[in-house]
Amino acid sequence: MGFIQLQQHYHERIERVLITAISGLDHLAPELKAAMEYGLLQGGKRVRPMLVYASGEVLGQANATALDAAAAAVECIHAYSLIHDDLPAMDNDDLRRGKPTVHKAFDEATAILAGDALQALAFELISRHQNGLSAERQLRMVQELARASGYNGMCGGQALDIQCEGKAIDRDTLESLHRHKTGALIRAAVRLGALCAENMEEAHLTALSRYAEAIGLAFQVQDDILDITADTQTLGKTQGKDLVQQKSTYPALLGLDGARGLADELLQQALSALTDISHPTQTLEAFAHYIVKRDY
Amino acid sequence: MGFIQLQQHYHERIERVLITAISGLDHLAPELKAAMEYGLLQGGKRVRPMLVYASGEVLGQANATALDAAAAAVECIHAYSLIHDDLPAMDNDDLRRGKPTVHKAFDEATAILAGDALQALAFELISRHQNGLSAERQLRMVQELARASGYNGMCGGQALDIQCEGKAIDRDTLESLHRHKTGALIRAAVRLGALCAENMEEAHLTALSRYAEAIGLAFQVQDDILDITADTQTLGKTQGKDLVQQKSTYPALLGLDGARGLADELLQQALSALTDISHPTQTLEAFAHYIVKRDY
Repeated sequence: MGFIQLQQHYHERIERVLITAISGLDHLAPELKAAMEYGLLQGGKRVRPMLVYASGEVLGQANATALDAAAAAVECIHAYSLIHDDLPAMDNDDLRRGKPTVHKAFDEATAILAGDALQALAFELISRHQNGLSAERQLRMVQELARASGYNGMCGGQALDIQCEGKAIDRDTLESLHRHKTGALIRAAVRLGALCAENMEEAHLTALSRYAEAIGLAFQVQDDILDITADTQTLGKTQGKDLVQQKSTYPALLGLDGARGLADELLQQALSALTDISHPTQTLEAFAHYIVKRDY
Repeated sequence: MGFIQLQQHYHERIERVLITAISGLDHLAPELKAAMEYGLLQGGKRVRPMLVYASGEVLGQANATALDAAAAAVECIHAYSLIHDDLPAMDNDDLRRGKPTVHKAFDEATAILAGDALQALAFELISRHQNGLSAERQLRMVQELARASGYNGMCGGQALDIQCEGKAIDRDTLESLHRHKTGALIRAAVRLGALCAENMEEAHLTALSRYAEAIGLAFQVQDDILDITADTQTLGKTQGKDLVQQKSTYPALLGLDGARGLADELLQQALSALTDISHPTQTLEAFAHYIVKRDY
């Protein structure tokens, strides 16, 4: 299977899993359920679930239902973070992927609750008993996801982002911001995938973490570049928004060429980390290329 | 130890555990950390952690660090729900326990993030490896907490509450609302405590669940009664607020005497459930009395 076909295969797989997860909710609060569904199923590149699948399958003998649960859990966390980030008190965005944001399509209270409930759903999905995967392994997966989502990860990075808005920050601070805000969950996606492989070796997990840290940062550098170079329609969100919000970006710190150079350097780091893995890693190599070369 | 002393003992114990949990966070985002601390450590009756401790200790041989983790996790979920409930888009409350709410003391964005990060912290705490408790048992605890917090529990109940605001609802709907909004987490507190007891029997868990469901509902009936009968100062929040917000309450549906009768009936149900447990249950009996007889 070529990379495009594999991506499509993973995409269809995660859509099915997410649809199943949402349809498993009863009819207690139809408006909340609809908002969760809207926030979770309105498209998106599904980069994180794909990384869960790719990472697990590269190591071989990955537990398929555990991979599905982890992929869905990571995407639930990502979706909740977007819903809350878009709120008026946060980034105040009306559009996401070209469609009204959750608080616009529903209301603010429902958007807050939908985010909260999607976070809980993530932990419900990832803690469900999986035949064939040890409870120790699963508990470790819960722990990884919780750390990556909370103060020491995504939430902390988001708070750091707010603290830094309108301020000139140095490259170390910008890197720390991104390593927490988006990097931690991308790293968790790759590690969770690996943890679904029954015979995973710790050395592989270490190598995959270095891979994930490099592509996580590259993802953000590329995001910054696209905010300047892509048009609003391709992007599905407002182009040039970083500039308007006075956000520090890699192109602002390093120039556009400098930022492109950094993205390439991170790509090389990612590819180099994969050489420590004693399995064929073409899929993960292709993902690294895709993340750095993508144009939306 | 008498009940008052035991309550005080549990109170001091959970405060220590919560302080340790917060001080374990690094200095990445000081404002967010301060908001989490403010939301988590500004008092509160700590009913849920106390129920975790009491339930576990009634069954004997409860794992002490697992009890601490579960008690702290449940309180993190409760604290996050209060922070989000107080937001302008939700209940729009300026005061909580006589002090400015988190979004007043900080700002809305920080309050949203503090709630989000406290939810993640709950799952981080409860999934930490505990010596002496099986990973299977711990995974089950994560699952219980996630279900009780999310769409099928607290978040769903909160959404149902919003849906019902200003509408006349019947007693079944009111009960369903409370069983989800507050009952699910109280039930989880009692069950998590029991799951920390290594030799727990499933029959005990069933009995404790019936106990918890009765006191959970009684807690809410008593809350409704206090909203009418207590003054604002004793309550630490605005008295008569349910009436102003046109919320359906038990006194409104059943009259004040009817509501008091229901609280007593639920107390009897709770006590009756405890008779199925082959351990001394005085502590849990005292808690049931305390919840129905409290005046704030």
